[in-house]
Order: sequence, then C-alpha cells, then structure tokens
Amino acid sequence: MTPKVVIDMSVSLDGCIAGPGDGAPQAPLGGRGAQQLFDWLFSGDAPYAGSMFRPSGANRQVVAEMFARAGAMLTGRRTYEIAHGWNGTHPVNAIPVVVLTHAPPAHPPQGRSQLVFVSEGIEAAVARARELAGDKDVGIGGASVAQQALRAGLVDELYLHVAPLLLGEGLRLFEGLGSREIHLRRVSALEAPHATHVRYQVLREERAPQP
Amino acid sequence: MTPKVVIDMSVSLDGCIAGPGDGAPQAPLGGRGAQQLFDWLFSGDAPYAGSMFRPSGANRQVVAEMFARAGAMLTGRRTYEIAHGWNGTHPVNAIPVVVLTHAPPAHPPQGRSQLVFVSEGIEAAVARARELAGDKDVGIGGASVAQQALRAGLVDELYLHVAPLLLGEGLRLFEGLGSREIHLRRVSALEAPHATHVRYQVLREERAPQP
Repeated sequence: MTPKVVIDMSVSLDGCIAGPGDGAPQAPLGGRGAQQLFDWLFSGDAPYAGSMFRPSGANRQVVAEMFARAGAMLTGRRTYEIAHGWNGTHPVNAIPVVVLTHAPPAHPPQGRSQLVFVSEGIEAAVARARELAGDKDVGIGGASVAQQALRAGLVDELYLHVAPLLLGEGLRLFEGLGSREIHLRRVSALEAPHATHVRYQVLREERAPQP
Repeated sequence: MTPKVVIDMSVSLDGCIAGPGDGAPQAPLGGRGAQQLFDWLFSGDAPYAGSMFRPSGANRQVVAEMFARAGAMLTGRRTYEIAHGWNGTHPVNAIPVVVLTHAPPAHPPQGRSQLVFVSEGIEAAVARARELAGDKDVGIGGASVAQQALRAGLVDELYLHVAPLLLGEGLRLFEGLGSREIHLRRVSALEAPHATHVRYQVLREERAPQP
C-alpha cells in the first residue's frame, strides 16, 4: 500500500476535538464531555496487544489497523504538550513523533519514540514525517497542523472517529480552511460502540484553485 | 411509532449547510459545491414515486422513509425564501409547512401545502408543527430554527445526510449552541451514493443544566 498522510482524529458530531476551555491542567480536553471523544479507545475490557488501549467491539479492528499502518505521527506543540509528549514513547508501536513548532521544549521526555522538532513549516514537517514513516502512513493529530496540511494540499485521507456528542463551543477541527471547497471520496464507514469511524480520500484534482 | 421532532438536513463533512455567500439569487446555496450536498437526492435515473426526487441506490430507502414518516416541516424565513416557499406545495406529500418568522410574507405562494407563519417563538412553532404532523414526524430544516430547537430541548433526533465535501467558510449547522454538551445515541448509519446518512437520538436526561 502506498504510504499516506492521514488526518486521524476523534471528533464530536459537531466537529470539535476538545471542549471549551481546553488546555487547563485539570481538564486538558476542556470539560468532561470531551473525554467521551475517546471512549471508543477505552471502553472495552481487555487491552489491545499489551498497549494502553482497551477498544471494544468493532473498535478493536480500528486499533489493529492503526497499529498495522501507523509509521509516524505529526502534531503541533499544543497537542504535544496536552499529551505530555507521550512520555517520550508514542502508545502506538513507539512510532516517531514529529512536532511542528517554533519553540521546541528544552527538556523533552526521554523514551523509545524518536522525537523530531521541525520549525520550517508544514511542508518540511510532512516531508520529515513521511521519511520517518517509511512504507507506512503518517497520522496527523492536532487541529492547527491538520488545517495547515489541508490548506497546503498535503493530506491524502481523513479518518474521523465521530463520537455521539455535540460539544457546542469547543475547538473545531475544520476551521480556517478558507472558502476553497475540498472534495472527498468516502472510503469506508464503520459503526462501532461510542464512535462511527469514517474514512475519506481527499480528491486532489478538485483542489486546484477554481477559475 | 411515537411522533418525533427531527433535525433532518444535508450537511458537508465539516458541518456546513451552505457555502460562503449563500442567499445570492444566482447561487442561493452559496457557491457551486453546496449543490453537491443534495446530490444524494438527485443522482439517480428515475423519480421516486412521481416526486421531484431522483435518489440513487440506498438513497431510495432514505427517501421512502422520508415520505412515510414526514408529517410537517418546520423552517425559518431564510430557508423558506431560498426554497421559494416550495411554490406552496412541499415536495414530500405536500405536507404542511410551519415558518418561524416575525415577518410573514405578504403574498405567500398558493399551493397544496398548508402554510402557517408563527411569530411567538420556537416552542410555539414546534407545538404547531407537532399538531399538524399528527402521528407523523416534524422535520426541521434550517440552521437557525434547528439551533433554537436544540437549545430549547425540543429535538428528539438528528438525521444528517453527510456529503463528502469540506465547504470551509460556509454556514454551519451546529453553531451558537453555547457551552452545554448535548449527548446523543447513534441510531443508524447508512452508506449510500453521495452521502452517509446518520441518525442520532438526543438524550434528554443528559441535557439538563450541569451542576
């Protein structure tokens, strides 16, 4: 399979990736409802392959696919911090993590993931993540990085895990995309406990500037 | 089946019901991409039961269900105008149309639909639509009316027809809902040509003000 750049994120039905007031130390996702975005990953009884994830029902196959396909993660400084740098070890196979930021932390956590800080912009960050992912996919997590990559035409797929919830004034995944339409092709939709998993291919030919 | 109040709308994957600049006479939905929101209704070869709709594939069953369940439509002035008042006859079984507006038009089109203008607010409008729908459902179409009904706790279900498209700066369905979380239960998800049809029940018990 050709390696892909995939925006792979959990969102509410109204497209939020966090509730209002996200980033606070006691509630990094902003409000208690936002935790529900990740119920699909943690609602089961048994851990997946010794990992931190406990997916239930059909969510197990989504996690299995993630472990099989993820080659590197690309994120921004904010998501990186909210996740505490994954303690230096990304929970999916300790894949490399590329962080797009102008302000790399002085003392990043030491772990098993290769950690790369890129400050030269989204093209450079995606290129570096692709390189590190080898023949596997790059997963983008984080609204700002996702939006930058979409605007720059660097995204191959959207893989959204849609939780049954409206977060209202939360942080939206799709914002600041400008007025250009981005056309998609649905690849799959899967109903699972606590989420509907929808995968879309970004149709590049449609994304050139309109006359 | 108990009659329900259903927000029944076609949206882009980023939750827009129209593109930027909607309302212009030559492009009431704002830009050409927004037309694609309704491809699922018009992409087939044959009309459904003599109606204006030409749904393809699994979309036919969605339209069949709509004809079976729709008892009345509730909308706002803007949607009513963009749809030219459906020429006085709603395309689904000529069901009654309730328009929530402070400024009823002087000369509404005469057709087979009963047309009711309500100015006393969303509760009164929903009550009137319920009355007219009898033992069938009330379908809400229009972002502002949908948002008012959600805030007032008057919505039983969301039925979204999600088109494979990001509209960017268009008109969002879920906006102005405040910071209260609205919890849902997924009822069904159906993949069909040009749309994924997702139905959610609004969980009332979760919607009381949080302590």
